Amino acid sequence: MCGVFGIHNHPEAANLAYLGLHAQQHRGQESAGVVSSDGGTLHAVRKMGYVADVFDERRLARLVGRTAIGHVRYTTAGGSLPKNIQPLTAELRIGAVAIVHNGNLVNADALREELETQGSIFSSNADTEVILQLMARSPERELVDRLAHALSRVRGAYSLVLTMGDQLVAARDPHGFRPLVLGRVPGDEACWVVASETCAFDLIGAERVRDLEPGEIVRIDASGIESVKMAPSPRSLCVFEHVYFSRPDTTIDGASVYEARIEMGAALSREHPVEADVVIPVPDSGVVAAMGYARAAGLPFEMGLIRNHYVGRTFIEPKDSIRHFGVRLKLNAVPEVLRGKRVVVVDDSIVRGTTSRKIVKMIREAGASEVHVRISSPPVTHPCYYGIDTPTRSELIAASHSVDEVARYITADSVAYLTPEGLLNSVADTGGFCTACFTGAYPVPFSGATGRRQLRLIEV
Amino acid sequence: MCGVFGIHNHPEAANLAYLGLHAQQHRGQESAGVVSSDGGTLHAVRKMGYVADVFDERRLARLVGRTAIGHVRYTTAGGSLPKNIQPLTAELRIGAVAIVHNGNLVNADALREELETQGSIFSSNADTEVILQLMARSPERELVDRLAHALSRVRGAYSLVLTMGDQLVAARDPHGFRPLVLGRVPGDEACWVVASETCAFDLIGAERVRDLEPGEIVRIDASGIESVKMAPSPRSLCVFEHVYFSRPDTTIDGASVYEARIEMGAALSREHPVEADVVIPVPDSGVVAAMGYARAAGLPFEMGLIRNHYVGRTFIEPKDSIRHFGVRLKLNAVPEVLRGKRVVVVDDSIVRGTTSRKIVKMIREAGASEVHVRISSPPVTHPCYYGIDTPTRSELIAASHSVDEVARYITADSVAYLTPEGLLNSVADTGGFCTACFTGAYPVPFSGATGRRQLRLIEV
Amino acid sequence: MCGVFGIHNHPEAANLAYLGLHAQQHRGQESAGVVSSDGGTLHAVRKMGYVADVFDERRLARLVGRTAIGHVRYTTAGGSLPKNIQPLTAELRIGAVAIVHNGNLVNADALREELETQGSIFSSNADTEVILQLMARSPERELVDRLAHALSRVRGAYSLVLTMGDQLVAARDPHGFRPLVLGRVPGDEACWVVASETCAFDLIGAERVRDLEPGEIVRIDASGIESVKMAPSPRSLCVFEHVYFSRPDTTIDGASVYEARIEMGAALSREHPVEADVVIPVPDSGVVAAMGYARAAGLPFEMGLIRNHYVGRTFIEPKDSIRHFGVRLKLNAVPEVLRGKRVVVVDDSIVRGTTSRKIVKMIREAGASEVHVRISSPPVTHPCYYGIDTPTRSELIAASHSVDEVARYITADSVAYLTPEGLLNSVADTGGFCTACFTGAYPVPFSGATGRRQLRLIEV
Amino acid sequence: MCGVFGIHNHPEAANLAYLGLHAQQHRGQESAGVVSSDGGTLHAVRKMGYVADVFDERRLARLVGRTAIGHVRYTTAGGSLPKNIQPLTAELRIGAVAIVHNGNLVNADALREELETQGSIFSSNADTEVILQLMARSPERELVDRLAHALSRVRGAYSLVLTMGDQLVAARDPHGFRPLVLGRVPGDEACWVVASETCAFDLIGAERVRDLEPGEIVRIDASGIESVKMAPSPRSLCVFEHVYFSRPDTTIDGASVYEARIEMGAALSREHPVEADVVIPVPDSGVVAAMGYARAAGLPFEMGLIRNHYVGRTFIEPKDSIRHFGVRLKLNAVPEVLRGKRVVVVDDSIVRGTTSRKIVKMIREAGASEVHVRISSPPVTHPCYYGIDTPTRSELIAASHSVDEVARYITADSVAYLTPEGLLNSVADTGGFCTACFTGAYPVPFSGATGRRQLRLIEV
Repeated sequence: MCGVFGIHNHPEAANLAYLGLHAQQHRGQESAGVVSSDGGTLHAVRKMGYVADVFDERRLARLVGRTAIGHVRYTTAGGSLPKNIQPLTAELRIGAVAIVHNGNLVNADALREELETQGSIFSSNADTEVILQLMARSPERELVDRLAHALSRVRGAYSLVLTMGDQLVAARDPHGFRPLVLGRVPGDEACWVVASETCAFDLIGAERVRDLEPGEIVRIDASGIESVKMAPSPRSLCVFEHVYFSRPDTTIDGASVYEARIEMGAALSREHPVEADVVIPVPDSGVVAAMGYARAAGLPFEMGLIRNHYVGRTFIEPKDSIRHFGVRLKLNAVPEVLRGKRVVVVDDSIVRGTTSRKIVKMIREAGASEVHVRISSPPVTHPCYYGIDTPTRSELIAASHSVDEVARYITADSVAYLTPEGLLNSVADTGGFCTACFTGAYPVPFSGATGRRQLRLIEV
Repeated sequence: MCGVFGIHNHPEAANLAYLGLHAQQHRGQESAGVVSSDGGTLHAVRKMGYVADVFDERRLARLVGRTAIGHVRYTTAGGSLPKNIQPLTAELRIGAVAIVHNGNLVNADALREELETQGSIFSSNADTEVILQLMARSPERELVDRLAHALSRVRGAYSLVLTMGDQLVAARDPHGFRPLVLGRVPGDEACWVVASETCAFDLIGAERVRDLEPGEIVRIDASGIESVKMAPSPRSLCVFEHVYFSRPDTTIDGASVYEARIEMGAALSREHPVEADVVIPVPDSGVVAAMGYARAAGLPFEMGLIRNHYVGRTFIEPKDSIRHFGVRLKLNAVPEVLRGKRVVVVDDSIVRGTTSRKIVKMIREAGASEVHVRISSPPVTHPCYYGIDTPTRSELIAASHSVDEVARYITADSVAYLTPEGLLNSVADTGGFCTACFTGAYPVPFSGATGRRQLRLIEV
Repeated sequence: MCGVFGIHNHPEAANLAYLGLHAQQHRGQESAGVVSSDGGTLHAVRKMGYVADVFDERRLARLVGRTAIGHVRYTTAGGSLPKNIQPLTAELRIGAVAIVHNGNLVNADALREELETQGSIFSSNADTEVILQLMARSPERELVDRLAHALSRVRGAYSLVLTMGDQLVAARDPHGFRPLVLGRVPGDEACWVVASETCAFDLIGAERVRDLEPGEIVRIDASGIESVKMAPSPRSLCVFEHVYFSRPDTTIDGASVYEARIEMGAALSREHPVEADVVIPVPDSGVVAAMGYARAAGLPFEMGLIRNHYVGRTFIEPKDSIRHFGVRLKLNAVPEVLRGKRVVVVDDSIVRGTTSRKIVKMIREAGASEVHVRISSPPVTHPCYYGIDTPTRSELIAASHSVDEVARYITADSVAYLTPEGLLNSVADTGGFCTACFTGAYPVPFSGATGRRQLRLIEV
Repeated sequence: MCGVFGIHNHPEAANLAYLGLHAQQHRGQESAGVVSSDGGTLHAVRKMGYVADVFDERRLARLVGRTAIGHVRYTTAGGSLPKNIQPLTAELRIGAVAIVHNGNLVNADALREELETQGSIFSSNADTEVILQLMARSPERELVDRLAHALSRVRGAYSLVLTMGDQLVAARDPHGFRPLVLGRVPGDEACWVVASETCAFDLIGAERVRDLEPGEIVRIDASGIESVKMAPSPRSLCVFEHVYFSRPDTTIDGASVYEARIEMGAALSREHPVEADVVIPVPDSGVVAAMGYARAAGLPFEMGLIRNHYVGRTFIEPKDSIRHFGVRLKLNAVPEVLRGKRVVVVDDSIVRGTTSRKIVKMIREAGASEVHVRISSPPVTHPCYYGIDTPTRSELIAASHSVDEVARYITADSVAYLTPEGLLNSVADTGGFCTACFTGAYPVPFSGATGRRQLRLIEV
């Protein structure tokens, strides 16, 4: 998961890109980058770390130009290489181009092999570079035509933003796996913005115009905005954007994430009621669904677990410790709320089960008499190939364990998941969703290994 | 405000001190430090920044020894000097000693002047160093006697932890302005811990034994634990520890902060009810009181403002921006929750009023028809001299404006504060509180300037 | 000017490459890099700065493998980009390859344009990358064949070293502009080394076997050493290697640089004698020639100028100073040696004349009665296109001023240069030399701008 | 050994102090620092590293004020602590004061113990701090009086410069162990400078007025310059300032170091002639004496060893190497100069003998038929207690070995040292010298350990 941002024709383009990334920091904490374009030359800042750590006044001041794109990247195992930090850039014959990408291509390895055989030199092991290399070899003269040419070869999930010269180009794959929304700054006809989430618009004072359609390429330049459509496919928006990834103050295709989560909690309560004294969330992701559950169940809602927000990307556990602290570094129970109570604890998902097990233990140690775990999404049984860093199937507890077995493993008195129908009905959205991770129905087939390419060059 | 920690006789003393500081990170984000003692030599790590940034595996591994103390410091204007980072240390004739301090001395300047006249050279401009210099000149042989000798000269607020050799010493001023709690690690008779808040114990698996009494000095060494009492004064615990500073999962003198805040909200609802559709908190500090308000008022509770937790110490606003983003960097409204609603927004305090004004504006722009601000503490009318970084009186909006004027300034439909009685009755605690910031009744008199000493030496 | 190094099949390959670069540090102080090969994967360290600053124990330890190549780069205006730091590397279809280059290609821009039109993406603006991109597109399977294929397209000056897998490949352009010498470690049959200068061999205890011939490609792998010849051209070794660039303890094609400089000084004395009391050098480059001059002239040799060797790459002049210190930061006169004396000062060259002018002034202020400047090479009248960073013609004082005018400008009582014949006769070397910078006879024609490519992407 | 500098009443005081330190960089490469005074406040920059690395434009710009002092410190084993970096500073009752010190006190430990017993807290383990602590306890009101009071207690070697307010104070111990010279900037009546060496004056364009007398304290302020004398002792200038420490372009008490070294070489030749073909120096320290030797002996002088000046403070040898490179990293022989020759190699001293042994081996490997070592000073048989970092007696090869044994150890055909008389007669200077290191006649007695104080506080 990642967050992207683009802005066209604004005197403070890089500043607003920086803020747009900050608002989407929850989508990726590993690295951040902005490339601005002054019409001819690109100016790049990209580093490992939080947006707040990557940018300072001096660097922002050097990102001159009226157009800018930006990216925040999620922490992924193994691929944390400086040369992979987005935006990726390349000096093509037609000009220098920068690109940001949210998603994952399923045929990147095969394309890379083909391109290398033809003499292309890759400078990263990001699948995104395949798009740049295909664009470099395209016979077309226009950026958007080269992009269309390249996208005709790739398959998978992508929400892209590019800049070259004074152009801003945005593209969403034919299935619309990842969100991408178009907006504009009120009072400034010529200033357009794109982002993964509308919360980025709220911070900079932009207004949502509409989400990009699946398979749409939008080109914005001095002559205005223009839209090109690729061959359509049924929409397959990742439903976990509503469950977990997006911020509750975001709307996707016009549907409120906050309202969806309230309704998920309510549906979960209707599907899986339980005799209890109090409903608590696993903060922060479970808060809104827990409120929906409590309200529908007529039970008191309490913040029975307090979250320490200072556990960031860099926090290390003492190495030689006799204990593993894990989730305790992040959460602490409030005994006054839990002592002697039958507790419903609401979370968005269970992946491996190890964290849930520790949370249940923590709640019991604080004095709860019963612990009932309620999950606002169906059991995750299949890995994601479209950009989410899920573990392999064998590590997904729900892939090999019944709900009762999960309950036993995490030592809960009961566990219950929202049904697929309950989930999809919670979202006020008419379009289709990708549900592959709990149904196994993959909208785009994939073949062979999709792991990162073996490194043959290591920067020490 | 700051957080302190100490641990005696544990094989992983520095690791646990590091975790104890992490759990208390909310008490100070400017700098962090740990000093460990291996019985003879002290080992120090102290740097500007978060606990996560100050410590890494290499540094932690070098903090050898079975005893350690630590400190997190709050951001204060002007005094952000590396040489002031705690723990402060000194090589006294009797050995090297380290000290951490939460609080503020009111007669530090006069004592410093007196000591300098006698030939003492100060190496910081922290008031804490006065205690070290007094200890250096004490004729006593034992650490605890030198400390008692020094404390007989100082007046004000202090919760102290010191280490020298294999000793751990903790002291709380005669008024008990700041909390200081004693605990132990279950199953390890000889291992004692002290901290500002019990949430530090929860993380490392220690158990609270009791809070230190006002005027108590505790000495812990190989021969056990021993307590010395200074001349007693009426307890004057800072009531804002319950309102705002402490984490809700902490207990102070056995009283739950979470329960106190729920009750503050409930009392606020009883004192200042209003016709409304929804109650929302200013997150995170107002969350628990807002829940108490909503519940007592029988109104729905919603998370109408979403907080971006990535606004840390280092986040900068773009310098040349046409707008000031301020609180928007941290909070965003959820229109789906607020549109067309009469909104009660609960916060813990109003200091200058500028932030509240922006929050009210944000709620209105999200569509609220009415905005009623409810504050879970009385109006702050007097500056604090005991360790809280309040502005001068002229900047405290409540010092010069009526409640109606405050409402007009922050553009709220109404504003109401919890009464002093309502506040004090909310805390299940029999002892006395310092209420100087809203009553002007200062338990310890102060004279003249108590600002930081003028710098005569600047490290570039 | 730069220095290159390569070593094949040694257990401490990276350590020796590091030392080999240290010995050649005088050839370039801007950046340094080593890439080692463990047979399959390349490991790279490359940074701005001195060899001593770029490498530390941790980094050296990670440069695993028995083969390594290295590079030090000269400070050049404008092109100081991290992405240009050598060794350059690329993951080709046949494996990851690293390359170092001393010299300059004259048709790099045209080739780059051609390659970009065909879809190649360049990741630096170094002319060396053209060779890599040509290799990537070569249909050959073997590294050395791909290299030969690429070199058939490029023209100009190059001494190259490459590694891929367990191979080490070295190549010298058909004119042999830059030196490149082959050696081996005594007692280790299979261990070969290559370097720009023999002084690198002395440090690591290797022995010179022979210099590579112009137009020779040497491949070293497990099966031994093999040589391939490109179409030959008359040798055109840069004669300034003897005058200035190489260390005096180096031999080039078997000729001693020290002896050549002694003879240059002697020839200069014979060509341009003068009535004088003392001969002094401009240290360090003029020391040996000044000794030769003094001895031939029968005059005392003194160190009348003392050099401060701490003026390194990073030394800055105070910005707001009322004076410009310039050469005074590096040199100081010894009045006891100069007072009342007729002084001959020997230097290797005059480029713009500004430094010489300051040196003459310094010698006069120390009391010299006459100052006679003697230069151990002919007047530099033409810029170099083969790898030396000379200024444009208009800045070369000798291009537009007579010797008398130069003397007047630098305020010397007389100035005299060694003649071309005097210079060439001083070198005990039968081969041909490039003398373009003082004759304008360029061995390889060049066309149009050869400046660095305009940047279209700037890393902030 | 260290270098000091001070400047009073100049608009660019810090810039000139920075340059004054750069000119004296040879006196210490471990750390550098400048403190400027704007009349009331001191501004400090002090860091480990070369002058070039410690200062940059931003830092220099912040060193405001018209008075400044500076210090470069020699690398000493064990005591490399940031808190010891000079200038040391202290905020005394009468103002903030900064001090720099070249030399070593012999009674620092006893005084420190006495002061700590009285309640002083030391913030470094530098012996210089004893002077600051004594000054802090002095009842005097004026800086110079407090200094005189403090100096009446200390014994040993010191050349000091202090600043407080607009005053600059310089002091030289009663024996005048270390040099300290007074100068002024021509054309600026009120601007005075002090430095360890006159080469610092040359760079900034100042003129030497006179050396401070042993036992003299000079105070410079707005009212002019004033001199105070302490009780006199016979002058005992360290004679090694002429042999080795000072730059050849410096004069001490009006005597030229360059001329002294030429004469040492000549005297050495007269005392210890040898049948030989060539004289070479160990560069750089032996160059001038070797020239003197060659000239007096009528033998050719050659640079038979080439020095690599890039071996700086940070250069590391590969850790896991099979060989120890040592002096080879710094020196390389020129076979063309040495092959088949009887070689005289001139150096300034032999301490342990290990380096000389390697140099002799290097010369032989380059083909010399005989190697005769000539040393321009007497055998060092006693450690120095006045500021030079000599090893213990047992490590001084000449303390326990005859000259023949030394020759055998370093594998030279012969070794000869300049006699004490030969040395003293070489210096055109009427005053007395400290010759303790080769005579054992210590001008100031010392008692017990003078090692650095045991650390009780370690900064990780």
